[in-house]
Amino acid sequence: MTSGSLLEVLAEVERGSLTPADAAARLKSLPFEDLGHTRVDHHRSLRTGLPEVIYAAGKTPSQTSEIFASLAISGVDVLATRVEAATAEALLAQYPDAIYNATARTVGLSQASKSAKTRGHIAVVCAGTSDLPVAEEAAVTAETFHARVTRLYDVGVAGIHRLLAVREELAAADAIIVCAGMEGALPSVVGGLVGVPVIAVPTSVGYGASFGGVTALLGMLNSCSPNVTVVNIDNGFGAAYTAVLIARAAHPQG
Amino acid sequence: MTSGSLLEVLAEVERGSLTPADAAARLKSLPFEDLGHTRVDHHRSLRTGLPEVIYAAGKTPSQTSEIFASLAISGVDVLATRVEAATAEALLAQYPDAIYNATARTVGLSQASKSAKTRGHIAVVCAGTSDLPVAEEAAVTAETFHARVTRLYDVGVAGIHRLLAVREELAAADAIIVCAGMEGALPSVVGGLVGVPVIAVPTSVGYGASFGGVTALLGMLNSCSPNVTVVNIDNGFGAAYTAVLIARAAHPQG
Amino acid sequence: MTSGSLLEVLAEVERGSLTPADAAARLKSLPFEDLGHTRVDHHRSLRTGLPEVIYAAGKTPSQTSEIFASLAISGVDVLATRVEAATAEALLAQYPDAIYNATARTVGLSQASKSAKTRGHIAVVCAGTSDLPVAEEAAVTAETFHARVTRLYDVGVAGIHRLLAVREELAAADAIIVCAGMEGALPSVVGGLVGVPVIAVPTSVGYGASFGGVTALLGMLNSCSPNVTVVNIDNGFGAAYTAVLIARAAHPQG
Amino acid sequence: MTSGSLLEVLAEVERGSLTPADAAARLKSLPFEDLGHTRVDHHRSLRTGLPEVIYAAGKTPSQTSEIFASLAISGVDVLATRVEAATAEALLAQYPDAIYNATARTVGLSQASKSAKTRGHIAVVCAGTSDLPVAEEAAVTAETFHARVTRLYDVGVAGIHRLLAVREELAAADAIIVCAGMEGALPSVVGGLVGVPVIAVPTSVGYGASFGGVTALLGMLNSCSPNVTVVNIDNGFGAAYTAVLIARAAHPQG
Amino acid sequence: MTSGSLLEVLAEVERGSLTPADAAARLKSLPFEDLGHTRVDHHRSLRTGLPEVIYAAGKTPSQTSEIFASLAISGVDVLATRVEAATAEALLAQYPDAIYNATARTVGLSQASKSAKTRGHIAVVCAGTSDLPVAEEAAVTAETFHARVTRLYDVGVAGIHRLLAVREELAAADAIIVCAGMEGALPSVVGGLVGVPVIAVPTSVGYGASFGGVTALLGMLNSCSPNVTVVNIDNGFGAAYTAVLIARAAHPQG
Amino acid sequence: MTSGSLLEVLAEVERGSLTPADAAARLKSLPFEDLGHTRVDHHRSLRTGLPEVIYAAGKTPSQTSEIFASLAISGVDVLATRVEAATAEALLAQYPDAIYNATARTVGLSQASKSAKTRGHIAVVCAGTSDLPVAEEAAVTAETFHARVTRLYDVGVAGIHRLLAVREELAAADAIIVCAGMEGALPSVVGGLVGVPVIAVPTSVGYGASFGGVTALLGMLNSCSPNVTVVNIDNGFGAAYTAVLIARAAHPQG
Amino acid sequence: MTSGSLLEVLAEVERGSLTPADAAARLKSLPFEDLGHTRVDHHRSLRTGLPEVIYAAGKTPSQTSEIFASLAISGVDVLATRVEAATAEALLAQYPDAIYNATARTVGLSQASKSAKTRGHIAVVCAGTSDLPVAEEAAVTAETFHARVTRLYDVGVAGIHRLLAVREELAAADAIIVCAGMEGALPSVVGGLVGVPVIAVPTSVGYGASFGGVTALLGMLNSCSPNVTVVNIDNGFGAAYTAVLIARAAHPQG
Amino acid sequence: MTSGSLLEVLAEVERGSLTPADAAARLKSLPFEDLGHTRVDHHRSLRTGLPEVIYAAGKTPSQTSEIFASLAISGVDVLATRVEAATAEALLAQYPDAIYNATARTVGLSQASKSAKTRGHIAVVCAGTSDLPVAEEAAVTAETFHARVTRLYDVGVAGIHRLLAVREELAAADAIIVCAGMEGALPSVVGGLVGVPVIAVPTSVGYGASFGGVTALLGMLNSCSPNVTVVNIDNGFGAAYTAVLIARAAHPQG
Repeated sequence: MTSGSLLEVLAEVERGSLTPADAAARLKSLPFEDLGHTRVDHHRSLRTGLPEVIYAAGKTPSQTSEIFASLAISGVDVLATRVEAATAEALLAQYPDAIYNATARTVGLSQASKSAKTRGHIAVVCAGTSDLPVAEEAAVTAETFHARVTRLYDVGVAGIHRLLAVREELAAADAIIVCAGMEGALPSVVGGLVGVPVIAVPTSVGYGASFGGVTALLGMLNSCSPNVTVVNIDNGFGAAYTAVLIARAAHPQG
Repeated sequence: MTSGSLLEVLAEVERGSLTPADAAARLKSLPFEDLGHTRVDHHRSLRTGLPEVIYAAGKTPSQTSEIFASLAISGVDVLATRVEAATAEALLAQYPDAIYNATARTVGLSQASKSAKTRGHIAVVCAGTSDLPVAEEAAVTAETFHARVTRLYDVGVAGIHRLLAVREELAAADAIIVCAGMEGALPSVVGGLVGVPVIAVPTSVGYGASFGGVTALLGMLNSCSPNVTVVNIDNGFGAAYTAVLIARAAHPQG
Repeated sequence: MTSGSLLEVLAEVERGSLTPADAAARLKSLPFEDLGHTRVDHHRSLRTGLPEVIYAAGKTPSQTSEIFASLAISGVDVLATRVEAATAEALLAQYPDAIYNATARTVGLSQASKSAKTRGHIAVVCAGTSDLPVAEEAAVTAETFHARVTRLYDVGVAGIHRLLAVREELAAADAIIVCAGMEGALPSVVGGLVGVPVIAVPTSVGYGASFGGVTALLGMLNSCSPNVTVVNIDNGFGAAYTAVLIARAAHPQG
Repeated sequence: MTSGSLLEVLAEVERGSLTPADAAARLKSLPFEDLGHTRVDHHRSLRTGLPEVIYAAGKTPSQTSEIFASLAISGVDVLATRVEAATAEALLAQYPDAIYNATARTVGLSQASKSAKTRGHIAVVCAGTSDLPVAEEAAVTAETFHARVTRLYDVGVAGIHRLLAVREELAAADAIIVCAGMEGALPSVVGGLVGVPVIAVPTSVGYGASFGGVTALLGMLNSCSPNVTVVNIDNGFGAAYTAVLIARAAHPQG
Repeated sequence: MTSGSLLEVLAEVERGSLTPADAAARLKSLPFEDLGHTRVDHHRSLRTGLPEVIYAAGKTPSQTSEIFASLAISGVDVLATRVEAATAEALLAQYPDAIYNATARTVGLSQASKSAKTRGHIAVVCAGTSDLPVAEEAAVTAETFHARVTRLYDVGVAGIHRLLAVREELAAADAIIVCAGMEGALPSVVGGLVGVPVIAVPTSVGYGASFGGVTALLGMLNSCSPNVTVVNIDNGFGAAYTAVLIARAAHPQG
Repeated sequence: MTSGSLLEVLAEVERGSLTPADAAARLKSLPFEDLGHTRVDHHRSLRTGLPEVIYAAGKTPSQTSEIFASLAISGVDVLATRVEAATAEALLAQYPDAIYNATARTVGLSQASKSAKTRGHIAVVCAGTSDLPVAEEAAVTAETFHARVTRLYDVGVAGIHRLLAVREELAAADAIIVCAGMEGALPSVVGGLVGVPVIAVPTSVGYGASFGGVTALLGMLNSCSPNVTVVNIDNGFGAAYTAVLIARAAHPQG
Repeated sequence: MTSGSLLEVLAEVERGSLTPADAAARLKSLPFEDLGHTRVDHHRSLRTGLPEVIYAAGKTPSQTSEIFASLAISGVDVLATRVEAATAEALLAQYPDAIYNATARTVGLSQASKSAKTRGHIAVVCAGTSDLPVAEEAAVTAETFHARVTRLYDVGVAGIHRLLAVREELAAADAIIVCAGMEGALPSVVGGLVGVPVIAVPTSVGYGASFGGVTALLGMLNSCSPNVTVVNIDNGFGAAYTAVLIARAAHPQG
Repeated sequence: MTSGSLLEVLAEVERGSLTPADAAARLKSLPFEDLGHTRVDHHRSLRTGLPEVIYAAGKTPSQTSEIFASLAISGVDVLATRVEAATAEALLAQYPDAIYNATARTVGLSQASKSAKTRGHIAVVCAGTSDLPVAEEAAVTAETFHARVTRLYDVGVAGIHRLLAVREELAAADAIIVCAGMEGALPSVVGGLVGVPVIAVPTSVGYGASFGGVTALLGMLNSCSPNVTVVNIDNGFGAAYTAVLIARAAHPQG
């Protein structure tokens, strides 16, 4: 029920076409938001202006296709993350214009916003080539949300001069996403070089005592740079989501 | 050495007053930043315009006093966090204008920016009264950095209507800091209600299987709201630091 | 040996047909229960009036079939949980009237109680579609035990209005089972909305620092709602078992 | 705002004394509960009829006293848990009729319900004498909520005959609370002996690999008895809270 | 109730002085053991012939004294472990003949068995001087149970020749107790040198990643010597208890 | 080199057929044991009289066959544990008289000791049918070492009367091996019923918070019965090895 | 850019062929190393004289081949570690002179240094045959770096005489690499026998509470021998890398 | 027994003054080392030429004094680590020439080697001022062992230019010890800058998810720089011990 709908109910009461008791019952059964819809994604989309995103992990190709279609039909942009090959195939068969990024494991469909201008600038940094799937998930998500993305890959701390060489690119971003596995040291170093928020994404890259990304996660939470916040292991999407919110706030729509 | 300084060295070489060999030696001994200073805090301060902050935990009262004085003498604002009573007493004896917040465990000295206008708006939310020290550390830090702070305390998820009652205050902020111990569920609920970045701070509040904040930390990292990022347990300062960066970016200095 | 049997032994002694020494030996060899049977399931069934349940995980199809048959022959209702497809097929071949719920991974055979009236009312709540297998295991178990079940699915805390919309259904139940993965925050919120026991089931849904359900488990154990108790990860059956005991106590037979 | 209040608002609209727009604004600002109050404890008390409980851990004597007084003044029964000696002294000085249980670390004040009849029957079982503080916290809480309590202490599994000797007392309860540290095996054995819900409370009793109650907690979560649910380590209060809800449901008020 | 007592009950029935119904009731209320006593320690003592042992940790001096006295009065040998200085003082004041071993933290009173011959031979080995309290607890316990004890201390694996020098003493024992902290490697090496059972006791000696004995515990559980079994961290008493059972079985009483 | 061999070297020196310097070199190159062989298994076999055992996990069928043959050729009994089907097939093809126990995953070849009399008596107890592979590994190992084995399976603590029904069998053993997964409570209860050493084997049976046997392991280490010692998860072989040593010591060869 | 290059830039400024502003820009864009190259491996190679090494885990055969070729073309020696069979095949097809070590999972190509003399002496020790892949990775790496390697395998601590028999070989090395799984005790014993650095490599060998090498790792970190340092689980390459640095320092190039 | 002693025994046999049987017995009772002494520290000292070191943690002042005196009397240099104030006082009272370093918590007594020349060069690096106690323990230990030490403190990764400014000092060392708490990132960065072994010491500095140094430890074990090895948390002594062995090997005594 939209804000208008609430007024309508009240107007019906005023008009006498609805008794107070009936109106009370009806208002009680409305969602708290008084927006007239129940799906959280629609809800969120309305509030933030960001397109719909489907988390495809653990869903069958047909389940993902169904959800994808139900979103696409309304004309919005759609993005699916954690898409395996079979699912990607199913989606592309249905939506030939959709774009599959095999590294990022994403399928995106641009509809409403094809000609939208980018808004905000996000740097996506990663330590090694094994971190690419997570970094690309972040980059593609940010681009889907119309941010400009600068990719700065393979700049791990064991060869610090590579990182120093891209300092100016880093400093130019509204927010920086840093993906790293193993010891997860990169966000601290990046955070010390810049004055913008750094969102650290631990990756499950490593072996032995890397414990599937836990070591990187702990390292990032203990960062000595105060501008570092952290998301879950391999959560490139979540990092991009917050980075986009930051970047958009810095670049309010004209 | 400032950017200007680098040019000066090179100009000296051009003028002949410095041999290439001597210049090479001098350039080599300069900090990489070419800014002419070596202290990271000064460095960071110049870059971000944020005052100096001293982490007093594990420092003796006299050590903290010494660092406090070395910063205060330059006329900047100074903030010390994790200040125990004895240290606070020592600081206040030296700087009667400084303000000690016993709950936040902070001592702040406002100098340069006494009449500065606030810039940006941060909501600080906490689940229970035991989370207050962390929430207040965040709030005081944000205020020291000239953000406007709205405190929304004691709004835990077990009484959800209390949280819903402050929805509009939440939606009005540039960034939201949510402090919670025990199961750490509050950031997810807050994140679902708003379209701004939520910075979650797990607190060491709880007993038994709360493991000194680890349970809250894990809960926050697994938040189903994509606009939640996380900092270390009890790290109110770090949360405020990033929140301020976000809020300032949204409110560029006139 | 039934309670009667004990009297019989003693009566035989009184009659002189059994010497005290022989009676002592015989009493010593009896099970403590004095019920004359050794199978714990039969034992439990007699005591509680609940049908037999087979935990099929780690059993071969033929092993499960054999146990299923040994129970079914006595005319009681039979339920098998954690049934994989091959086992389900074997059971259905043998018992065409049995019902296979692929989501819940259960096979149930209703015999004695086909026309039994429901007794008690249980709400089964879950946070997302990935929690369905656990929620359905709980729901089917409760229904097998003749409870009325209200399913309230996909009401996660990141979209709190969805949960609030079903408050009355929640309040109407004798006991509520809440299944959630990731941060496991849902039981706390549900617990705060109602005055009945909430049994929390952490699910192994999530990735990275969800640690296969451990994060949800810890969150639930630290719930700030005092009416929440917890069972093992993915243990929908156990949650339903206790919920049924509670619901039946509130609705004594006839 | 009570249910009545909602009708009143709508009636005012019907009468024309309130415009729909103003009513919309007013309804929006109401707590979701429509009960007209914001304190969760009052809220819970109204719903469940259970007295107020204060968790005193981490609160100063004066803080606890203040909350205690604010509750006591309304004439309800009041219970404080985790009360240290100094706090107990402060409370007793103010309320000479209050009762301090040093083992349970509780202070209770009976006012409204002095002559209330007990409702429901709860057995509190513990494995050893070191578990007494937790067991007593559970027992006192249950008694404060007017349940009849049977204490069955020092019946650990290493001397199983002691437990078997109290089987009938166990079977007579509406719900059983079992407190145990070390290996936490007692709830499984108790659960196998009875057909009522068993609420297991791991205690922090033990040394070495007991890890402050974690071993007992894990053991209880893995109980092979399906009628066992678990609460946090040392959470006697929470166990009693749920046990009371179960017992009261089985004994509806005449 | 002794085995004789059971016969007596049955004889009363035979005599007609007890009705079968009364006898049934009486037998039901007896401990399962039909031994006529309810204290687990007495029970165990009767079965094994070993003296009573009190675990004094977490008990006040007066509590321990009371239990000590209740055991001592029956003339048996009594041992208290984990005795702090204040408790030791209280016990010695009451029983001047008792012996306090400050390193082992034990107080023992020899009564019945003053002239008992030793039975079986146990070697107690430890890696370093910091392991002495645990090793002595084991040694004193074994001696209280009348085993002959050979102490082989300070023979850690980093100086393997020290251990090899005592090979013959090791080989002569019926069972070997090995106490070690840090990496806990000693039991594996000892186990490889001998053909008798080795009971490994991890000690909480160490720092950093020794985790209070967990590292030693894990190392011992993973021993590559198949004759090694393990007890809880610092559990010298438990190791001695089992070692004594083994040694006594090898030396049946003449 | 046998003890005799050492004498031979020294005799050669005495005879003058070996110079002291050459003898020194030769003695230096001998194994410390002065037994003239380097394989630890042979060594152990000589010392303990127990047959050779091969741990086949992680070895290819041909590797296991090769080791099996190298042992079998000397005429001793041979046992291989953790044998997968392919390896079993290879071994049986080579040694048709060998016996493959598919549940225990063992292949045994009886040669030297076909007519050996059993020596000692070991009870092998397990909680549920899923623990059978571990229990059978223990039982078969003990039988290979000529112990008499009593199997007492499916006697878990949730149905305590089943366990009590076998008390006499338990009490008759020289040592008891107890295998249990999930909460691992069984050894404590068994340990409380008997006066012989109990060797607890945690099994990896369970799900969720059973953590592949860790919960059972921790429970067993914290057993409140002092006659319980513990081996690694699923280590049926190790438990049997120590149990056999205990049983043999109690039954010295005539 | 070499050190010479820096001088050249400055000389150009002196000559007037480069303005100070252009020189500043150029210096700024240079890697910090002033070496004129950006690839960290090349960089490291120049500094240490060690050949290039590719970590092939998680790379496709074609990715590894591509990197291998890009390194091989410059004529240096190349080593790939963690090479699976398919990748090895691809590499050998391209470089028939390359050598594949299936146990070590390495492919090495000797080009520049075919006739290089060995420099330094490293002993590689392991506890059991299951540790061979890690030990061989270390040995092959060290040989690729032109160290002389002595392999001392299957000398676990449960048969200590095997280890003592090789004491002189151990003492002769410049550095010793010790690979061990399970309890990880071997480095402590080796460390106690020699006066050279011991680099411990925990292996993921074991089961149950070995936790994939974590137990061995913890044991090694807690070694009571002060000359032991540790690398990540299964990290034979890293151990060899450091061992080679130590050995080369002890044998400076003539 | 020295190597000479062995020959003597054999010579006695040759001379006929010792029978082979007596010689065999004597050789058997000798320590394996054939050095004629049993104390491991003396042993180690002889082998390495390094002074004696006492680990004073957990020792009383008088115990430490006694061991200190027993070493000092032989005229060697003596070092005690982890010395608390009271112990330091006791040692200085006895040895006025000894030097107490309160930060490093060491007391050193230089006797034999007062005029010894330094041998080898070690850099000790730390991230922050809280790491000083560990760094100083390493530095003082290295100096006691006559290494030249360069201290490079407060060069954490969040201000990378500070570290880059000391690159040449780093490159000049034979071995580098890097102490860091929190995220433990410093060794990776240092390791990437130099071609010498880096020994990483995690410190227990930090809060929340630093887990007393575990996070730093894990980060260091996962270092992406292959020249990094790791010691236990806060183990400055162990790091120095190995660093000294490396440095001495590179600078053989003239």
